[in-house]
Amino acid sequence: MNFTFDRSWRSLLIATLLSFTAAAMIGDSALAQEKAVEAADADLGVGYALDNALLFLCAILVFFMQAGFAMVEAGFNSSKNAVNILFKNTMDLCVGVLLFFIIGFGLMYPTSYTGDWENVSGYFAFGGVGLDGYEAAADRTFSPKVDWLFQAVFAATAATIVSGAVAGRMKVAGYLVYSAVLTGLIYPISGYWKWGGGWVDQMGFKDFAGSAVVHGVGGFAALAGALVLGPRIGRFVNGKSVPMPGHSLPLAALGVFILWFGWYGFNPGSQLAFQGTGDIDATMHIAVATTLAAGAGGLCATLLSWFMFGKPDLSMGLNGILGGLVGITACCDCMTDWMSIVVGIVAGVLVTFAVLLLDKLQIDDPVGAFPVHGICGIWGCMAMGILPNGYTTLSVAEKLWGPQAVDWAPATSFRTQLTGTLAICAWSFVTMFILFSVLKSIGILRVSAAEEQKGLDVTEHGMHAYGSPS
Amino acid sequence: MNFTFDRSWRSLLIATLLSFTAAAMIGDSALAQEKAVEAADADLGVGYALDNALLFLCAILVFFMQAGFAMVEAGFNSSKNAVNILFKNTMDLCVGVLLFFIIGFGLMYPTSYTGDWENVSGYFAFGGVGLDGYEAAADRTFSPKVDWLFQAVFAATAATIVSGAVAGRMKVAGYLVYSAVLTGLIYPISGYWKWGGGWVDQMGFKDFAGSAVVHGVGGFAALAGALVLGPRIGRFVNGKSVPMPGHSLPLAALGVFILWFGWYGFNPGSQLAFQGTGDIDATMHIAVATTLAAGAGGLCATLLSWFMFGKPDLSMGLNGILGGLVGITACCDCMTDWMSIVVGIVAGVLVTFAVLLLDKLQIDDPVGAFPVHGICGIWGCMAMGILPNGYTTLSVAEKLWGPQAVDWAPATSFRTQLTGTLAICAWSFVTMFILFSVLKSIGILRVSAAEEQKGLDVTEHGMHAYGSPS
Amino acid sequence: MNFTFDRSWRSLLIATLLSFTAAAMIGDSALAQEKAVEAADADLGVGYALDNALLFLCAILVFFMQAGFAMVEAGFNSSKNAVNILFKNTMDLCVGVLLFFIIGFGLMYPTSYTGDWENVSGYFAFGGVGLDGYEAAADRTFSPKVDWLFQAVFAATAATIVSGAVAGRMKVAGYLVYSAVLTGLIYPISGYWKWGGGWVDQMGFKDFAGSAVVHGVGGFAALAGALVLGPRIGRFVNGKSVPMPGHSLPLAALGVFILWFGWYGFNPGSQLAFQGTGDIDATMHIAVATTLAAGAGGLCATLLSWFMFGKPDLSMGLNGILGGLVGITACCDCMTDWMSIVVGIVAGVLVTFAVLLLDKLQIDDPVGAFPVHGICGIWGCMAMGILPNGYTTLSVAEKLWGPQAVDWAPATSFRTQLTGTLAICAWSFVTMFILFSVLKSIGILRVSAAEEQKGLDVTEHGMHAYGSPS
Repeated sequence: MNFTFDRSWRSLLIATLLSFTAAAMIGDSALAQEKAVEAADADLGVGYALDNALLFLCAILVFFMQAGFAMVEAGFNSSKNAVNILFKNTMDLCVGVLLFFIIGFGLMYPTSYTGDWENVSGYFAFGGVGLDGYEAAADRTFSPKVDWLFQAVFAATAATIVSGAVAGRMKVAGYLVYSAVLTGLIYPISGYWKWGGGWVDQMGFKDFAGSAVVHGVGGFAALAGALVLGPRIGRFVNGKSVPMPGHSLPLAALGVFILWFGWYGFNPGSQLAFQGTGDIDATMHIAVATTLAAGAGGLCATLLSWFMFGKPDLSMGLNGILGGLVGITACCDCMTDWMSIVVGIVAGVLVTFAVLLLDKLQIDDPVGAFPVHGICGIWGCMAMGILPNGYTTLSVAEKLWGPQAVDWAPATSFRTQLTGTLAICAWSFVTMFILFSVLKSIGILRVSAAEEQKGLDVTEHGMHAYGSPS
Repeated sequence: MNFTFDRSWRSLLIATLLSFTAAAMIGDSALAQEKAVEAADADLGVGYALDNALLFLCAILVFFMQAGFAMVEAGFNSSKNAVNILFKNTMDLCVGVLLFFIIGFGLMYPTSYTGDWENVSGYFAFGGVGLDGYEAAADRTFSPKVDWLFQAVFAATAATIVSGAVAGRMKVAGYLVYSAVLTGLIYPISGYWKWGGGWVDQMGFKDFAGSAVVHGVGGFAALAGALVLGPRIGRFVNGKSVPMPGHSLPLAALGVFILWFGWYGFNPGSQLAFQGTGDIDATMHIAVATTLAAGAGGLCATLLSWFMFGKPDLSMGLNGILGGLVGITACCDCMTDWMSIVVGIVAGVLVTFAVLLLDKLQIDDPVGAFPVHGICGIWGCMAMGILPNGYTTLSVAEKLWGPQAVDWAPATSFRTQLTGTLAICAWSFVTMFILFSVLKSIGILRVSAAEEQKGLDVTEHGMHAYGSPS
Repeated sequence: MNFTFDRSWRSLLIATLLSFTAAAMIGDSALAQEKAVEAADADLGVGYALDNALLFLCAILVFFMQAGFAMVEAGFNSSKNAVNILFKNTMDLCVGVLLFFIIGFGLMYPTSYTGDWENVSGYFAFGGVGLDGYEAAADRTFSPKVDWLFQAVFAATAATIVSGAVAGRMKVAGYLVYSAVLTGLIYPISGYWKWGGGWVDQMGFKDFAGSAVVHGVGGFAALAGALVLGPRIGRFVNGKSVPMPGHSLPLAALGVFILWFGWYGFNPGSQLAFQGTGDIDATMHIAVATTLAAGAGGLCATLLSWFMFGKPDLSMGLNGILGGLVGITACCDCMTDWMSIVVGIVAGVLVTFAVLLLDKLQIDDPVGAFPVHGICGIWGCMAMGILPNGYTTLSVAEKLWGPQAVDWAPATSFRTQLTGTLAICAWSFVTMFILFSVLKSIGILRVSAAEEQKGLDVTEHGMHAYGSPS
């Protein structure tokens, strides 16, 4: 097995080096183009500065969420697998930004900058011009560079959600393949459906910052991974669930604080504009909605766990916060403050019951990635078909709440939301289920039982997360 | 006892759900209002964008301080109580933002947006309009939403200061009651006295970013809690102090770095304006003053501990940094760079001696919350009555330093500063002393001795902070 | 020996206090000047706001890198020396900002604000005027205050690089001397050569954000320290290398995430302007170049370690990320996206082999500070003489890649880059080698063997990083 690997990654290495030699050649022409673009730049004024500044700030906040995911996932898992989890999170980011540069961005936004499909027909570096050859889109006032950065860290977010769900039993090599395929192919394709102007967007589906597009994709990929891999040894014994608590709740809690912090980039940044009063007000509204949903989700899950188990459970509270954040992601632009709280409360309930349900079904998702990102991802999109909101029209919401006087924007309906959400989540689940199954069949999915019990840190990396004190 | 609780939080849960049903009803009308407001929005131009952008950045930096507090407090305490501390910090934030939304903001800034008391007579959602119904204040150029966010995280900061001081012996239920009362009632009331335009503001009292209004309130509430609770078992034996060192100084140090980082939102953000050259220069001056005071506080406390105990003490250095930050908070807008260093040095000295004094008095404040936030909170406000500064007039400072040619702004005096500082700190101390005493009398303040020795993580939460490696 | 110390730091303390009394006197005059400056301020408009806002954001991101360094260095070292490392990182910052305020800034930028050398002839508070007396430079549109903050945290970065390399065996007192000399003297002098307009700048040397000016200086000081100190006991036994793994890879990984996050301030902030379209585009280009180089460095070092050692090594991957970041620092403004990836790949290779080389040479650099900051610092500057880029002219690059049509800016050459890089790195190495040797000769460099084996936390600070659970 190791032999196979040695060969496969040697090939990978050589292929990579060759790609970059080619890239270096292309570099020259890109350089020339960049110069041309620069020369053509008119002064785009203060609005350009404002939009870029905010998007830059938000992009790096989303970037920092990677640290949050790493801490949450490491903290909620065993210390014998901590190096492995940190490794996966680190590589998600490194591989993610490279692949989203080389393939993903062109696939997801084929028409944003170039105006026609032709230029991206090869996808590779967007038909050879690369980011440097782009001009700013006519209808947007920010640099293509910062746009790429913002989108790239979104892609990395989708990828990294899975690493927690497959923790403790998946091979590194298989994971790297998964990560590359998700960031370079699966996420950009369904992302195109909505944010690139594809079919779910055209049918009126709403998903502001990606409850389904980002979190649903990650969450359902996580479910696929957990299902194909099967539970960790000892997680379910004789049909009974045996809790395997995390090795460091301080790291997990730190991770959740970082994620909440980073979400102020994820949601407000998705407004993508900051130069007009309307956009500014919307951005700030979104920040408050995000805050209230997170607080409500955390409090609700805490109280619920207290009610059900007799003691307030920190892990559940933390997952409630994350659930509230995922839930409000789709609809933070169109819910009132009060409705944001409702979205958070429902997310807190959903997370709690989804965790219990997975337990019942004997599906092992060590960090609750599917309940948080999958279930609350669906909830965030469906909330727009159920609760009164700025997009409300013919929908369950109307039946429940009466006709709304409000129609800020093109309307959405329960049915539209359901179709779009299911399409995106199913796309991720099915393709990822197939991918994980293929990885399994070629023997690079799951480590051996002996390796699992020894811990992936030693067997896969030859390291310990925590050294001896001397 | 558990029975009592079960009942009380069940009621709480039901009450909460009912509130939100009501809220959902209100939601509709708020939604309609929001639409109206939006329609009325004129284009407020670039200045509006700048003010909002900076306040948003600063708000989320202050938000991130919650992670800092959580790490500092967890790190400086025993690992058997780490889950409990993380839980309290997480809930401070979740409960805090919800209560500050429902009650606190309307109580603290009754006239900021609506112009009359009438609208907030019920406080609940500010008379039913909620944030969504506000229009931007005439004299401010930022969105009410970001204003709320900035103020809400300040409130959460005041609340979370206490959790370190009461660590290791306080019941979760009692803590949640405390946290709700402080964020929803006590902090907004004294906050109104100063920042809402109340009586201490009208008498000319200065407290730029809240040395007293935020840190004094938190620090004196912490003292009240520590006094009513009494020391942890084993902390003082036969009149002798027995140090109980923290379980993770790396986490504590990380927390201090995060807090210092977040303070660049706390102080510079409190300028609340960024569109004019004067406001920009002031914001940058404040950032430098904050930096210098923190550095001076940290260095001074370190040297002092080295001098007094023979070895440089990291905990003292860290608390010296925090003391410097708390001290400069009130006066970062009016001290020269050199005077900022003096403020930091004095804070470093005060923190060190206050820690020793508490030890002498056998008051158990596990993280030094009172020395850092209470004592240095007072110092920050009093420094303006003692050191030469931009507000100096008839005061101790004048006697010490001679008449100042400088009068940038309405003057303040030693007496004014003393009155205001004592009023705010006493308000917090007295009300919180009463609250903690009430919690004690009804039996929800302190855990049993057996529970305390076993650790709150297991007894209150049924969890361990650090799992076994397998 | 201890006696000597007691005396020396007592003197230090008294000297410090006297300085600040003097400072307080100066304070008054500075205060008066500040008022004058303020009165003279015209409204500098929106451009001033934009430049200040971005530089402020970037300055605090760079500030936060201190937390990253602390976590990386603590994580990669033994737990018995963790308090010591955290202490050094904390004091680097506290001492650093104070000394850079009192001496460093005036030394590094003597002509930026005052226009003549006379005013800074004494360096102390820049001839007595202090930052408060400065007026904004004619050719820059940001506040002198935020300029100072940005530069001060750069100086602290240079200083803190060393603490990892000398970990586990250096006395605290010696370290504080080193830190003060580097921040107050060595870094500002070579910094002046380039960024203050000195001789290497005049010869056309390019180093955009400080691959050599900051990281090279830190990295070569680290090498000097490691050489003079010698390896830790047990690190090399009978000519064989004995790995001494870090005590917490989660902390190390967290630190790398924080550093990458902070680098979005380090590099994009170094554009120092954000009001024109060209500067905005450049800033965003820099952010993307930084991202791609980091990803490529991390992936390349990981694959290389996998290839060479049979398992993917997390530490190597993390150092590869840092190497990529250091490498792109000098040239992020002038490399295309593809070339940025090449810069990262080469950095990943260099870090890996430099770590192995140090091992071979039996030089003990516990965290790889020299490979990451020293070697990749050189690489970043030399890349501009080798790879095609925006500054290319007569150089190795031209010979390799053919004449370039591109000449955005004054050209640089292989020879110029080599001269400048070597000058700066040699300056740091030689002066620091002398300093460490002097510290050694007066007996304040290395702890005793017994102390080293017991751990510096107990012997130097009387504390443990991790407490017992009770």
